[in-house]
This record gives sequence, C-alpha cells and structure tokens, in this order.
Amino acid sequence: MRRLYSLIIAAAACVAAMAITPQEKIAARLQHSASNHCIYPEDNLPQLSPAPAGYEAFYIDHYGRHGSRWLSRASAYQRPVDVLRKAHHDGVLTEQGERLLTTLQNVLAASTNRAGELSDKGAEQHQHIAERMFKNFPTVFAGDAVIDARSTVVIRCILSMQNATTTLRSLNPNLRITTDASYHDMYYMGYGHGEDTLANKVSARTKLISDSLYAAHVQPERFIKQIYTHPDHLDLSAAQRLMRDIFDIAGSLQGHHAFDNLDLFHLFTGDEIFEMWRLKNIEWYLYRANSQASDNRMPFAARALALDMVEKADAAIAAGKRGADLRFGHESVVLPLACLLEIDNINLSTSDLDNLHNEWQSYDIIPKACNIQMVFYRNAAGDILVKALYNEHEAQLPVETDMAPYYHWNDLKAYYKKKLATPIDWDK
Amino acid sequence: MRRLYSLIIAAAACVAAMAITPQEKIAARLQHSASNHCIYPEDNLPQLSPAPAGYEAFYIDHYGRHGSRWLSRASAYQRPVDVLRKAHHDGVLTEQGERLLTTLQNVLAASTNRAGELSDKGAEQHQHIAERMFKNFPTVFAGDAVIDARSTVVIRCILSMQNATTTLRSLNPNLRITTDASYHDMYYMGYGHGEDTLANKVSARTKLISDSLYAAHVQPERFIKQIYTHPDHLDLSAAQRLMRDIFDIAGSLQGHHAFDNLDLFHLFTGDEIFEMWRLKNIEWYLYRANSQASDNRMPFAARALALDMVEKADAAIAAGKRGADLRFGHESVVLPLACLLEIDNINLSTSDLDNLHNEWQSYDIIPKACNIQMVFYRNAAGDILVKALYNEHEAQLPVETDMAPYYHWNDLKAYYKKKLATPIDWDK
Repeated sequence: MRRLYSLIIAAAACVAAMAITPQEKIAARLQHSASNHCIYPEDNLPQLSPAPAGYEAFYIDHYGRHGSRWLSRASAYQRPVDVLRKAHHDGVLTEQGERLLTTLQNVLAASTNRAGELSDKGAEQHQHIAERMFKNFPTVFAGDAVIDARSTVVIRCILSMQNATTTLRSLNPNLRITTDASYHDMYYMGYGHGEDTLANKVSARTKLISDSLYAAHVQPERFIKQIYTHPDHLDLSAAQRLMRDIFDIAGSLQGHHAFDNLDLFHLFTGDEIFEMWRLKNIEWYLYRANSQASDNRMPFAARALALDMVEKADAAIAAGKRGADLRFGHESVVLPLACLLEIDNINLSTSDLDNLHNEWQSYDIIPKACNIQMVFYRNAAGDILVKALYNEHEAQLPVETDMAPYYHWNDLKAYYKKKLATPIDWDK
Repeated sequence: MRRLYSLIIAAAACVAAMAITPQEKIAARLQHSASNHCIYPEDNLPQLSPAPAGYEAFYIDHYGRHGSRWLSRASAYQRPVDVLRKAHHDGVLTEQGERLLTTLQNVLAASTNRAGELSDKGAEQHQHIAERMFKNFPTVFAGDAVIDARSTVVIRCILSMQNATTTLRSLNPNLRITTDASYHDMYYMGYGHGEDTLANKVSARTKLISDSLYAAHVQPERFIKQIYTHPDHLDLSAAQRLMRDIFDIAGSLQGHHAFDNLDLFHLFTGDEIFEMWRLKNIEWYLYRANSQASDNRMPFAARALALDMVEKADAAIAAGKRGADLRFGHESVVLPLACLLEIDNINLSTSDLDNLHNEWQSYDIIPKACNIQMVFYRNAAGDILVKALYNEHEAQLPVETDMAPYYHWNDLKAYYKKKLATPIDWDK
C-alpha cells in the first residue's frame, strides 16, 4: 500500500513536472530566470512520506548552500553604472536610460561594502530550512542530540550556519551544538583547497564554450535602443556585457526585502529573458555538472565531500549517534556533489546543449540555500535506511530499492564507495 | 544604605587589588604572564549590586573580544620548530632540547590550518559570558527582546558571536536576534578600515620603543643553555627570538583543552616569566593604550566605535527598546575603547614604563573575550542610569555620581560627546 502511495506521488510529480515547460515556468515568474540567484523555493513544498513501519529517523547528513546574498563582486554593481554614467555624460541616454542609471546608482549605493554578503532574505531562508528540518524529523533533534555544524571560511556561509543553528537551539535548548569554520576542513567543505583545484583547468576550458555561446546568442540591439539615443555608442561586445550585467542585477534583486518593489525585468522581453536564462543554464551545466564537454569528470570535484558524508554517516551509525552533521557552503559544491551522488536527474550527461534546457533547469537545482539532506532511519534490529531530500523534495538515488524513497544504506554505501574510488585524470 | 554597601565593596576590592603584586599574581598562576593570551578570567566573579530602587535594566550596549584562539600566524608555531630542527640536524640539542622539539612539532601539527581560529575554550567562554549576561540582566532579555549582533569580518569573532547568540536563544527562544559580519560596519567595529588606520603610524613608532626594550632586557643565556649543547649556535638576536617565540606558545596553550596537561613554562625561571610578561605589558600599553609616548592619541583609534555605542544607546532609549547591541571584535579595539571611555584605571597616562607593571596589568585588561557591557536602567519617570561592567566587574566611569556604580546617562553622554569631538592630529 505504501509502495503504491509512493508510486502515485512520484507519478503525479512527473506529470506535474512534464506539464510545465521552462518557458512557461519562467513566464509565470520571471525571477526563475536568475539561475543561481533564485531565492530558495520554499512555497508549496511537498508532504514527505512517513517513516517505514518500525523505523525511526535518527541522523541527518547535510550539505547546504548559503542563502541569498549580494552579488559576489562589487564590480557587478559598479561596471554598468560606470558605463551608463559615461553615456549620461556624453548625452546619449534616453529618458528610460536616465531612469535606469538612477536606479542602478541606488542599488550600487545599497551594495557598498556588501558584495558577496548574506542578505536579510538569505538569513531567513536558513532559519526556515532549519525549522522545517526540525519539524520534519523531530526524532533526529530530540533530547540532547549532537549537532556538529561546519562552514566554509566564507562569511555568508558562516552566517547561514549561524541562522540555522540558532533556530535549532530555540526549538530545543538542550541540543549539543558545536560550530566551526576552518581552513582545516576546506579540502572537503568548499572549493580552492582540494581536488576541485585540479578541476579548474577543465572548467577554464568549458568556460570558453559558454563565452562563445554568449557572444553568439546575446542580441542586445533592442535592449540598448531603449536606453541609448545613439546605440552605436557601444560596440557589440560592450552592449552584450551591459545587457548581461543588468540582467544579473535584475535577477539578484529578489534576494533582498528592500528591493521587493524594484523590477528591472521590464527592460527585457520574455524571449530575451528566456534566452539569457538558457545561456546561463548552459554555463552552469558546463561549469560544475556532469557534462560530456568535461569528459564527465566535474562531479569528482566533490569527491572528498561525498567521502566525508559517507564516513560521518557510518560513524554516526556505529556510535548510535542522534543528531546531524550540518555543512554550509556553495552551489558550486552542491552541484557536483548532487551529480556525484546521482540525485534525481541532476547528473544528466549530454552533449546536446541546444536541448539542455528541456532536460535540466538551474532554477530547480542551484537556487540560493540549495541543499541535500540524507536522512537516516533505523529499526529495532539495527537495519539502516536512508532517504535523500534535494531542496526538501524526496529524491531518487542510484541503487535499486523495494521501498522508495527509502534505500538500504548498505547497498547505497557500497555503490558510492566503489564510485568514489574511480581514478580521474585531471590533466588530460 | 546602598551607597554604604557599594563603598564597602569598592573599598574591599581596592584592598584586595593592592594586597597582591603582579609578581605574586603571576607566581600563583604562571598563565597570567600570557597577557593577551590569558583565558577569560571567569572564576570568582564578583556579585553585582542590585538595581537601584524603582529602576529596571532594559538595554545593554556591548563590545567584546573573541574568545581563546590559536596564535594568529602559522609562523608563530613554525619558526621555533624550524630553528630547533636545524639545531637537531647539526647535533647541538640537549636531551631537553630534543624533547622540546618533539613537543613543538606536535603543537605545530595540531595547529595546521588553524592559525588565528577560535579554540574550543574560546567558544565556551562566549557561551558562558552570554549565559551570565542573560542571568544577570533577565529584564534585558525578556519576552521578544531585540538582539542586534555584529561581528568584525574575522572568523573567530563571527564564531564568538555565534556561540553567544545561540546561547541566548536557548535561554529565551523568543528573542528576535539578527546577526551580521560586514565590511559595511568595519569602520567602527574593527581595525584597518577607520581612524585606527591613521593611528598605525603612531604605533609603528612606539613599536620601536618596545622592540628596543625586548633587545635590551630579554636575557636568553640560561634558557638557551638548557636546550643547546653549543649555545653559540645562535647569536643573541636569534636566541632572544627563540625564547620569545617559545614563551608565546607556552602562554597560548591555556586556550585549548587538548593542551591542559602540556606545560612549557617549566623551561623558564620565575624571574624570566615575570620579565617576559613585564615587557609584553609595556608593548601592549604602548601599542593601544593611553601612553604619553603616543601623545595620548591612541584611545581615539576607537572613536567611531564609542560614537556608535552612544548613538545606539540613545536610539534604544528613544525607541523604548528592550534588548542589546552586541559587538564582537578584538582586544586591539577593546583596549583603546576602554581608555576612551575612561573605564577604571585602564586609561592610565604615564611615561614611567619602568613602573608600569605596578599600575597597569595586561592580564586583567586584555585577556581573551575581554568585554565592556554598558547596562542601561530606567525608572517609571523615564530617568536613565547606566552601569559599566569591565570583564563583568562593576567599573568606575569618568563623571561624578551620587549612586555609584550607577551613573546618570545624560551626564555621561555629555562628557563622552564632548570628548569624542576632540580633534586629533595623527600626522604629527
């Protein structure tokens, strides 16, 4: 009966997913076009299936991205302002262009000394995720459960951890929580200190592909004409850069309460918005997912993290631990990790970039605060099951099971351990 | 009656303070010689005086240093190991020298990728301080009181904030807590982004004084002889450096549970320990306190912070706020701030460095997690009183009062505002 129930849920989800195209999804809410700048999708989260009879959740193995933030680099706000200020000085802005300059100057001023920092909504996202985690799995957070929280050394991640753990503490003051953010853990927690550094050579090559796609497909003529009285003030490359910069800011505004009533998407047509998203979708796929352009190597950038998750889960099982290992980091880590763990279809391998958007959508995969929760259950006999949540949706894992969405840990672990031992030649 | 009680307490504290010399204090617990590496002194904290009749505490204006940490630079652990390894290779270490090398190598290994990071004891110090703050002033943290916590962008400070706020949340889950660690606030929160940068020229000059005192007074001959079979393997300057490096590590070990049973002070005589402390005491006094060598300018390095405290207190009073502004930073900020606010005798101005240790003791002033709590009280008529705690001891402030340790906020504010408007010529 439960199996049937799960199948019906899964089938309904498939139908729902199939029923809406990326074009429709973005048209319905333009903010979906922002790829990795999308706010965390926490409305209409699905009901989770109940624990199998006789099993109780006792441990969560987690990795999550920081919440919404300011754009990473101050130049992302500064550069388009500089371009439009010059145009203003040269007297070539339309009335709409002048208004845009004023708006962008206001955003720039608000962003001063904030580049890359967690936003107010970003803090709330982690409060909400932690609260739902607690309420979804009360047995994990019961009594004096042990919560070991780690963050990369990047401040927006540390503050995300802060918001999550403070929330958990308020729900159960007896939790034993430790927190850390250390270079000591960076070889598996983040990027720039482990096997991922070897992958940088590969992503430098795939970046040439996405750069060439932007150059070939971004059509800025109409966009520029509404801003410039003399569109030839900018050459094609500068016009593309300006259009992309303003599109990035437009998509990022959703991360701040202060900008809830500020819209920059009105400068773009629906087709332009879709095309800009489609290109960014390809860029992210090539950068950190399982693309054939990278010889399917990129997921292994998260190998040390996947190993850490397997080992900490095994240690928790062996120790009879109740609690969680919580890790706070980046989408550029969540993405290869989700590929490596073969969660849902995130690990898609294709060379057909023209059709990618129909198969793989960044807004569902790498929004702010995207996260993986591996939830462990045991029964009185000590049998261990695991269920994976991706952004709090029950997810499919790469081994057979007779009780989806629950998987037998020993099967899954054997699969992962074998896969994680795969040698990768990063030099070819 | 209450006045009399306060006077008796104050007098008793004076007598107690006078009764013990720095020599005796350090001899009784060698760890006191570690100056800014001393653990937070939280044993035997004094009972606080009760609120004046009719007044209730409603707001705390705070700045606190991060808790115990690893030494700031990896070189602090690496450099003495390199020196002793070379001596080992050259076959000039005594048996005691060989044992020391092994010990220092173990400490170095434990410190790898941890330089500057908060330690386990550092986290606990902030949990304890927050818990006592909550219990000392329950009316400040009642109901849905608003806690605005800010940290410098340095991770050990952010994690100190994390430990403090998570503790407060567990004591009252309804607290409205926001946290931030932003370059946006660095001009007043820390160093390197505000008026303090102008002060760097001054401290560069006073450093020449402390450097010359170390060169003149550190006597490494006996110390080196126990480590080297051929003491002339090192010239005087290198021997002084090694002795100072090992003394720093010896003093820093108290910040880690893992080193509770590891002692390096046995390598120093009592006189050497006292002298090393005395020199470091002078160094800190010259670096950030109100020394005549800096023309008494250094306290003004914390001017923006003091102004922020005055302004946030006034805003809290005006808004009828219940709660706290908590700030987490560094001893190099706490010290000039305490001088600027003229808390107790920290603002001592002297040119007599030979006698400084009898008047001014770093172990009481800048231990790990040293902190200032300005606690605000009001009565039904809206009259505002303030009490200052320095490291949780009731402190003297620089205006007259008829009800010490409580001061009339309007008097204190007027005094501070006038003082904070003092122009400082940082260029002379």
